[in-house]
Formats: sequence, C-alpha cells, structure tokens
Amino acid sequence: SAASSPIRATLFPGDGIGPEIADSVKKIFEAADVPIEWEEHYVGTEIDPRTQSFLTWESLESVRRNGVGLKGPMATPIGKGHRSLNLTLRKELNLYANVRPCYSLPGYKTRYDNVNLITIRENTEGEYSGLEHQVVRGVVESLKIITRQASLRVAEYAFHYAKSHGRERVSAIHKANIMQKTDGLFLKCCREVAEKYPEITYEEVVIDNCCMMLVKNPALFDVLVMPNLYGDIISDLCAGLVGGLGLTPSCNIGEGGIALAEAVHGSAPDIAGKNLANPTALLLSGVTMLRHLNLNDKAEQIQNAILKTIAEGKYRTADLGGSSKTTEFTKAIIDHL
Amino acid sequence: SAASSPIRATLFPGDGIGPEIADSVKKIFEAADVPIEWEEHYVGTEIDPRTQSFLTWESLESVRRNGVGLKGPMATPIGKGHRSLNLTLRKELNLYANVRPCYSLPGYKTRYDNVNLITIRENTEGEYSGLEHQVVRGVVESLKIITRQASLRVAEYAFHYAKSHGRERVSAIHKANIMQKTDGLFLKCCREVAEKYPEITYEEVVIDNCCMMLVKNPALFDVLVMPNLYGDIISDLCAGLVGGLGLTPSCNIGEGGIALAEAVHGSAPDIAGKNLANPTALLLSGVTMLRHLNLNDKAEQIQNAILKTIAEGKYRTADLGGSSKTTEFTKAIIDHL
Ligand SMILES: CC(C)[C@H](C(=O)O)[C@@H](O)C(=O)O
Ligand SMILES: CC(C)[C@H](C(=O)O)[C@@H](O)C(=O)O
Repeated sequence: SAASSPIRATLFPGDGIGPEIADSVKKIFEAADVPIEWEEHYVGTEIDPRTQSFLTWESLESVRRNGVGLKGPMATPIGKGHRSLNLTLRKELNLYANVRPCYSLPGYKTRYDNVNLITIRENTEGEYSGLEHQVVRGVVESLKIITRQASLRVAEYAFHYAKSHGRERVSAIHKANIMQKTDGLFLKCCREVAEKYPEITYEEVVIDNCCMMLVKNPALFDVLVMPNLYGDIISDLCAGLVGGLGLTPSCNIGEGGIALAEAVHGSAPDIAGKNLANPTALLLSGVTMLRHLNLNDKAEQIQNAILKTIAEGKYRTADLGGSSKTTEFTKAIIDHL
Repeated sequence: SAASSPIRATLFPGDGIGPEIADSVKKIFEAADVPIEWEEHYVGTEIDPRTQSFLTWESLESVRRNGVGLKGPMATPIGKGHRSLNLTLRKELNLYANVRPCYSLPGYKTRYDNVNLITIRENTEGEYSGLEHQVVRGVVESLKIITRQASLRVAEYAFHYAKSHGRERVSAIHKANIMQKTDGLFLKCCREVAEKYPEITYEEVVIDNCCMMLVKNPALFDVLVMPNLYGDIISDLCAGLVGGLGLTPSCNIGEGGIALAEAVHGSAPDIAGKNLANPTALLLSGVTMLRHLNLNDKAEQIQNAILKTIAEGKYRTADLGGSSKTTEFTKAIIDHL
C-alpha cells in the first residue's frame, strides 16, 4: 500500500540536460504515486581521490546501500587523465550486464517497424580490460580478456531474462571463427547455460553477419547476448533502428542484484538549461528500474503514458520534430497516466 | 586495341556456386571485348603443405605473377584445424586493404536510398593477429596488434583512393576512447596522412556512434577507413543497407599493387549447380578489378549493363525476388552492353 515505507533509490541527475530530464522523471513518478524516495547525488567538480574521478565515494555507497539507482548523462572531461565516470561506475559497482530493450515506438516512424529486441552486453572485461602497451616503437598491443566466470554470469543473466520475460530465443554474438579461444570460451559458456533452458531456442551468430541481418530484418532477433565491445556496437546500432539513444532505455545489473538504470545519450551541453531536452530515454530507463523492483503495474502505467504521448504526436520535443518544452512533454505524460 | 596482347588475370571460381557465377563473368567480359585472358585455378581437395590449406602454391604464384585476380567464394571446411582460405590469401599475398564500394542499386528497393560509400578495411592485423592463449584455466586473452606501418599504409590507400575517385571526406572509425594506445596509434597515423591531403575533409567517428549513424542516415558518410575487425563489421552492415553481400563488390589490395577482387558472400552449396545463383557481387568485383587496371571504359560499360538489368527488373535471380536462371540474367546483361 502507499502507506508502507517507500523504497529508497539513488538518483544521479548528471551533467548538461541531466537535471532537467531527472526532474521530469521525478514529477512523473510522483504523479503516478510510485513508492520511491530518491536519494540524489550530484556529480561534483572536484576529483575524489578515492574513486579517481568526479564520482564521490558517497555516491557509490548510496547505490550499494539502496541496490537501485537511476543515472543521467555524465560528461567526462577529455584528456585530463582520469577515468571515465561510466567506466568507474561499472568497475566499482561490478555492473556486469548492460541490458537494453529496443523497440519501435508506435507512431514514431523510422525505417523499421516492429523492432522488439533486447541486447545484453557483458560489461566488465573483453576489449575494455585497459591493458595496452607499446611492444616496440610503432607496435602496440591491447589485450582482450574473456573469463569463464564473467561469461557464465552474463549468459545466466540473459537466459534468466529471456525466460522471465517470455522471450523465446537467445542469440550469442561472436567472432569465434577468428578469435577461437576468447570468443570460443564465451560461446562455450553460453552453450552450457543454454542446456539448462531447453525451452529457450539458442543460436550463435557471427557479429558481421548479425549486423547485416539487423539492418535487413531486425525482426529476426529476440534476445542477444555478447562480449563487451560487440555489445557496445550492436546496442547503439539497434538504438539507431528505432530513432537513437534519446529514445532507448538501458539498465546495468551488478553483483548482488544491484540495478543502475541509465540514459546512455550525451549530456547535450548546447541545449542544457533551456527546457528543450527529451527525457524519454531516462524515463524509460526509470521504467526498467521499476520492473527490476517488481513494481510492474507502475512500470506499465508510466510506459504506456510515455508511449501514448509520443504516439499522439501533439507534444514532442525538438529532437523528435516537435516544438514542446521538456516540461510540456512531461505534463502531457502526466495527463496520460 | 583488341589486337594488342591481352592482360593475364587469375581466376579462382571457388566452391559451390563459384563456377557458375565465374562463368557469368567470363561470358560478359568476353561479350564486352575485355582484353583479359583468364588463368583459372581451382581450389583443390588436398591440403598443400606449403600453404597449409586447400589453396595451392601455384594458385598464389599466379596472382603474384599477374598482379590481378578475381575470386569466387571459398568454403573452408570447419574444425579441421587448417587455416581459412580467405585468411591464407590475405596473409600470403599481403593483401593489406579491403575496399568495398557500397551503393544503392537503382530500381532495387531497400529501406535506404542514395547510399554511396566506400569502406576501406585494414586487412592484416588488429584482432586478426591469431595470437591467443589461456592464461590460467577459465581466463583467456587475445592480442590486438596495431602497427604504425600497417596503419599508415591503409590510411595512405584510403586518402589516395578518395582523391583519385573524387571523394570529399574520409572518416576514420575507432574506439580510441577505450583502446587509447592501439586505436590511438591508428588515428595518429590517419591524422598524419590527412595532413598531406588538405583537399579531403578528415573526421574521426567512434564505432558505436558510427553504426548508429549508418542505420539512421548513411548519406552522412563517404569514405570510411578502419582497423580490421571494425572493417569486418561495418562493411557487412553497409552491404545490408543496400541488399546484402550478393550485390556488393569487394577488392583486396596488396603490396606491390596486387589487386584481388572477390565476392564476399558464401558458396551457397544448397543451390550450387542449379543455375540459380546471382553473379552480381562477383561481376561488380570484376568491375573493380577493371578499374584497378585502368580499363575504365570497359568497367563503366559492364557496370551500366548490370545496373540496367537489375533496374528493369525483368530478369532477376531468386534472391532478388525474380525467377531468372543465372544464364538468363547473364544473357540479359550481355544484351544491355
Ligand atoms: C562512453 C563510452 C566509454 C561507453 C562505452 O564504450 O562503453 C559508451 O559508448 C557506452 O556504451 O556506454
Ligand atoms: C570468413 C571470415 C574469416 C572473414 C573475416 O572475418 O574477415 C569474412 O567475414 C570476411 O569479411 O571476409
């Protein structure tokens, strides 16, 4: 009941348009009576020596304590030698799976209809090891690391996700014809997990072929699971099919069940503070957070209101070809709740 | 003149549908009076110990001697522990750049119009080093190697290509925000070469963003140059935009000016020998070979005949929704010469 104690969730509004779109989320969640109490943490301007980044230790502790959080865009100042905030978060919170639902928004036309897929990306290793060095002048190498532990973990997550969301197929994306040992180990782990889910169809698709099939006929895919870099590439490609990163949610899953949902688009400093930003990606990310908390009715209600507002087309922000302010779009969603 | 001595070129018809589509090329080139004499080499069924593959030493020598060649699909039997024929060719002939023109075919509708771009892929190193090992049980690593020499070489090729083909822009595709040393070196080399071509606009695009932009608006791109794996992925993605690998040409450039054009699609054993295959990719690859030989009039004449035949739509093979036999489609092209 509404009277029971609320769930505490961390909120990182982030930089640029972050505070405005976070505001939209707060208003809509409040209007929908979502039993969440936000614990807001701002990204500072001083580097915290304990995290080597602008992200403070307190911010990380908040997510660890609450187990759930929502994050807006964080701009990492370039070329100052400190770690990207996104990578710091993934590492410190051990966010091992990045889950991105990607579906066509009714009424918002792109070249593709009926896209409805989920990309699940291993988020901790692979090409993101950070291990690189110069062998001799003019020859550099970087290490891609694949472990059985991380591969099994993300494969387990993918199959569990597929089963619990009524999905029928998991495709493991790889380049094991070239990287037989690394991608080969990833596939081996996926196969092991697949055997425990006989009701889910399992297939393996080479990444180049996968990208070709995605642009020809994305309806061929359901749930995709893959190593880090392939996930980085394919999740953005898929977002492009339905309109871009401004419209697609993302949620990171960490050890111990932590869920940190996030808008993966940029902080758009050019329009920051002008009430022009589109809060959809952060809103839909918030919805994935609600589902993670099993607040499925609230999730459904809010998602429907967002989709209806976009479908009607009367209130759309500039990036979608409209002229609504962020606050007008937000109000329209509230009216549709 | 037709009386002057013909140019010798190597032809590998390849496996499956290879011989049929190679036949189509031979007929059309003959009908167009192309001054080429083919030196045909079949892929054998015995492993040549000198190449560790089904590709014989004599076949390789033929390409080295002639400097130009055309290759159909080659099926590498799986799991027998010998090297892929494609990789053997790249390595033995030092085919350092893979060039794939990708353009919308008039009259053949896909979701995209006006695609007109060229992907240029570094073809010898990067993630294809073959260097992989198990560190401890459950932990494997693979090495991505980037060298100054190979990066400069492919960048030079890309800018030279752009300039000599009247192209305006070169985009270097990378993930240097994560792989700062390896992809960073690649970018550094591209920048060095870019300075020598002030008339060509140079830009750098992160691969995830590139894939999103490609599916949203491929007209944003002109010439793309990139390390090996990104090239593998993006060239297939681009082929998907205009209809797939059955329609897109490919040409490999090697040290000393060797050019080996190839159809990059598979050998389609299911329809082999049935006169059903679409020879377009091999034909258009043959056209890129003609351009490489500066036989531009012949190239233009044949390309126009192919495009006209497809545009008219009266004779199309099954993969394009028609019911023509390979030989009927071939004859229609000859009629359009
Ligand atoms: C900003 C960058 C480091 C990051 C990544 O490569 O993972 C981004 O592309 C993402 O997908 O979250
Ligand atoms: C078959 C495979 C080894 C090859 C590659 O990865 O390079 C193919 O995808 C290509 O693009 O020619």
